[in-house]
Amino acid sequence: MTTLVNHQFKLARRPVGMVQRSDFEYTEAPVAEPGAGEVLVRILYISLDPAMRGWMNEGKSYVPPVGIGEVMRAGALGRVIASNDPGVAVGDHVVGVLGVQEYAVAKGKSLTKVDPRLVPLPVYLGTLGMPGMTAYFGLLDVGRPKAGETVVVSGAAGAVGQVVGQIAKIKGCRVVGIAGGKDKCDYLRSIGFDAAIDYKHDDVKAALKQHCPKGVDVYFDNVGGEILDAVLTQLAMHARIVICGAISQYNEARMKGPSNYMSLLVNRATMQGMVVFDYASRYGEAAREMAGWMAAGELKTREDIVEGLETFPEALLKLFKGENTGKLVLKVADA
Amino acid sequence: MTTLVNHQFKLARRPVGMVQRSDFEYTEAPVAEPGAGEVLVRILYISLDPAMRGWMNEGKSYVPPVGIGEVMRAGALGRVIASNDPGVAVGDHVVGVLGVQEYAVAKGKSLTKVDPRLVPLPVYLGTLGMPGMTAYFGLLDVGRPKAGETVVVSGAAGAVGQVVGQIAKIKGCRVVGIAGGKDKCDYLRSIGFDAAIDYKHDDVKAALKQHCPKGVDVYFDNVGGEILDAVLTQLAMHARIVICGAISQYNEARMKGPSNYMSLLVNRATMQGMVVFDYASRYGEAAREMAGWMAAGELKTREDIVEGLETFPEALLKLFKGENTGKLVLKVADA
Repeated sequence: MTTLVNHQFKLARRPVGMVQRSDFEYTEAPVAEPGAGEVLVRILYISLDPAMRGWMNEGKSYVPPVGIGEVMRAGALGRVIASNDPGVAVGDHVVGVLGVQEYAVAKGKSLTKVDPRLVPLPVYLGTLGMPGMTAYFGLLDVGRPKAGETVVVSGAAGAVGQVVGQIAKIKGCRVVGIAGGKDKCDYLRSIGFDAAIDYKHDDVKAALKQHCPKGVDVYFDNVGGEILDAVLTQLAMHARIVICGAISQYNEARMKGPSNYMSLLVNRATMQGMVVFDYASRYGEAAREMAGWMAAGELKTREDIVEGLETFPEALLKLFKGENTGKLVLKVADA
Repeated sequence: MTTLVNHQFKLARRPVGMVQRSDFEYTEAPVAEPGAGEVLVRILYISLDPAMRGWMNEGKSYVPPVGIGEVMRAGALGRVIASNDPGVAVGDHVVGVLGVQEYAVAKGKSLTKVDPRLVPLPVYLGTLGMPGMTAYFGLLDVGRPKAGETVVVSGAAGAVGQVVGQIAKIKGCRVVGIAGGKDKCDYLRSIGFDAAIDYKHDDVKAALKQHCPKGVDVYFDNVGGEILDAVLTQLAMHARIVICGAISQYNEARMKGPSNYMSLLVNRATMQGMVVFDYASRYGEAAREMAGWMAAGELKTREDIVEGLETFPEALLKLFKGENTGKLVLKVADA
């Protein structure tokens, strides 16, 4: 067996402000041998997620930070090319936390098998992956929208947002998406959103007032910052705010808190945080229901695919610059 | 009948920053005659509440603002001296929204009768009044503490805070109060708080870490600002934050939002606003239970009584300067 070379991005230092290429080290190393219960995976697609920025910071969060010198953490999808786990066969396609690299050794038990015949592989990193699960449980379990209510989602053209809005439509809600730029807003309307607000162009508060005449019953927040503050001024009584992310703030030295949070008091509203991992035991249930909606044409999905492992830092930046529409995925090798 | 003179404080202008005497006009007028269904009340005690600052601002809140030139809104307790409501007798003691003045005409139906033989009259503006109701429902219905959990309350030596902490003790919780100054902290320990943090002297975050080794399960927030941010760093998983007030921010030109609100995500925590009026149908139930605790010596209560209607602006400022311990009440006349 020829010695395979594994290209990897390792965390070189903790970023200050906006993440940049020099925060990483691009290295190569021989591919490791899988031990007992382990498999070797050829990575095909790497998931690029806003949460990765948080993992680069020092300090406690819902997962430990990536250590300096460690391979950058990332969800990824690949094909098994060697296996010491009887439950996983060579040729299987698997998803797991495999890192920003070409090859990964992982415990077979830590991986989830996916079927490449059902949907294109990148969908398993998006709508049928963590972002889709986040949208499903965040909206339905935390937001608890009722038919006829108004649901607003920010980062609406992103991996999570596009799914939140469509599930809310399926549940009979009025859905308003907030996104940056005309193209994204056109995309949102094309997949059934009742209205789309372009935060780069529109007065968000005025547009919310126009598009949510009865106020906002559920706000699914992916962005934080000024947009969260604008939505807080337009809450309906007993509104629920789902805190899923705050991408506008991740590269800031100091988070901006929501100045208008006393609207929670005035409107007897709730702001609740969620982390998708808590719902792991129910991923199967959610994936089956969402696959059904996709098959029925009620849930559309879009991926934004960038090619080449070596472009990882710039590809990741697309997220924070708001340049992606749909789930951002880095393609590392042909399937 | 001699014409009675009514001294009143009217709102002269909307305050900018800290409220001051010149925001009010101190006037006198003949006492009005009660119409059909109305009664005339000689006001004895006026309740001074942080919420009054909000009522002075322009703009929508949970109640309309006080208009310029109107008598300043306030809860008060008085004795009925004339009645055109068969349900209310001369000599009855009543509580209601009667304003900052010596005499008030009000619909009999808008008033609640209280019994001066059961507890001292000012208690009906404090622990058995709105502050006590706020504490009871905010803690039990929104905070939902379980025995063995850690409850933290800010503004702990105030009208609401002192009751929150004692109810949490009755429910079997570990209770930590945050207040300003040694005297207040001594008071909190004297009424059974497990620990008291002096925010003017202690490092609040470090003290919370010390006194809440398992994290904060329920935080009852009366103050907002830096203290809310400090508590957010010490949440236990699935913590509940009750947003009851933000007295540290009411006189600021721009509210400071909680910069650390993403702790809600990390800890799957909830921040929920409450307004006591929503629980009006259950006040009786709460008052009976709290009166029982008071009779049993489990719930102590303290009032801070300032005398003389004409001192109203300075008395109100005591709240925002944190100078009161227990419920702040303005005594207007002898019972």
